[in-house]
Amino acid sequence: MAPRKQRQILDATLELLAEKGYEGLTIEGVAGRSGVNKTTIYRWWPSKAALLGAALVGAEALEFDPPDTGSLAGDLRGLVEGVARLLTVSPSSDIAVAALGAAVHDPALAEAAKGFFADRFAREAPIFERARERGEIDASADPMLIVDLLAGAVWLRAVFRRLPLDQDFTDRAVALVLHGARPTG
Amino acid sequence: MAPRKQRQILDATLELLAEKGYEGLTIEGVAGRSGVNKTTIYRWWPSKAALLGAALVGAEALEFDPPDTGSLAGDLRGLVEGVARLLTVSPSSDIAVAALGAAVHDPALAEAAKGFFADRFAREAPIFERARERGEIDASADPMLIVDLLAGAVWLRAVFRRLPLDQDFTDRAVALVLHGARPTG
Repeated sequence: MAPRKQRQILDATLELLAEKGYEGLTIEGVAGRSGVNKTTIYRWWPSKAALLGAALVGAEALEFDPPDTGSLAGDLRGLVEGVARLLTVSPSSDIAVAALGAAVHDPALAEAAKGFFADRFAREAPIFERARERGEIDASADPMLIVDLLAGAVWLRAVFRRLPLDQDFTDRAVALVLHGARPTG
Repeated sequence: MAPRKQRQILDATLELLAEKGYEGLTIEGVAGRSGVNKTTIYRWWPSKAALLGAALVGAEALEFDPPDTGSLAGDLRGLVEGVARLLTVSPSSDIAVAALGAAVHDPALAEAAKGFFADRFAREAPIFERARERGEIDASADPMLIVDLLAGAVWLRAVFRRLPLDQDFTDRAVALVLHGARPTG
């Protein structure tokens, strides 16, 4: 398929998801919006979940440049701010929250979401490689665990507790993950 | 309303949620299952979201005794294990994942879920009071942030990454939150 045609299909998928939610997203609707034949879409993506999975990984609205601020603390603050924007600022939040919310109930979509998370993590990994080179992180520290603690807290606050994700939250979350909750004295 | 009747309504709500998901849950269905008149149910809970909110806070299946192991590390490990069980072991996982997944899209249910989280946190707070008395936690540490980091990571792994939540995960997550990722040497 020509890249431009593929881009039209994936963009239409994300637009319809943001407008109608995952329930309202159909291959038929994507065909109508993108002007590409339904059969052609099915030939490339055998299911709605597979189509959305591909759209998420390639989504410009979810685009994300891993920060490179020169310090691990700065990079992790950038990471927290990026996840917070993703989940709270339109249009990325319309897409990400609809897709992730639906993935909770839909095993096929969850499988597609796993691909999105794996892709993200591969792009975040250099943050931790640089931190190791700079001696800012313990050799035993697990980068994916650090990402999951921070991104998980953002999800929980933004989506479930509906608490603001401000600078203070970002600073405290990163400081806790770097220094721990034990008394310092 | 007699407490027994109320219990029947709330139990029927959770059963139907676990069986049919939030979409399939209706006040009509709860009336049928509990044997209580629909009008009576509406008089107490004006909406499906309000009814489910009350059912979640009182749910026996989501019951949770905050751990008291004698140390903050032990209590936090117990907390992580409790959240992991809640999200992965039936019947609590059927209820919790269906309700929290639906709360993502439904502002009224999200409001009800906030109540559930606030209730949970009130019961977790003594863990941190005891830790302070024992000198195990820095005076500036924010208990809700610690809970959100840990519970958020469990959610992300269980629901989005679909990775196992084993003893090793629990130990590493708690150690990171207590000691931080900075080099120890």
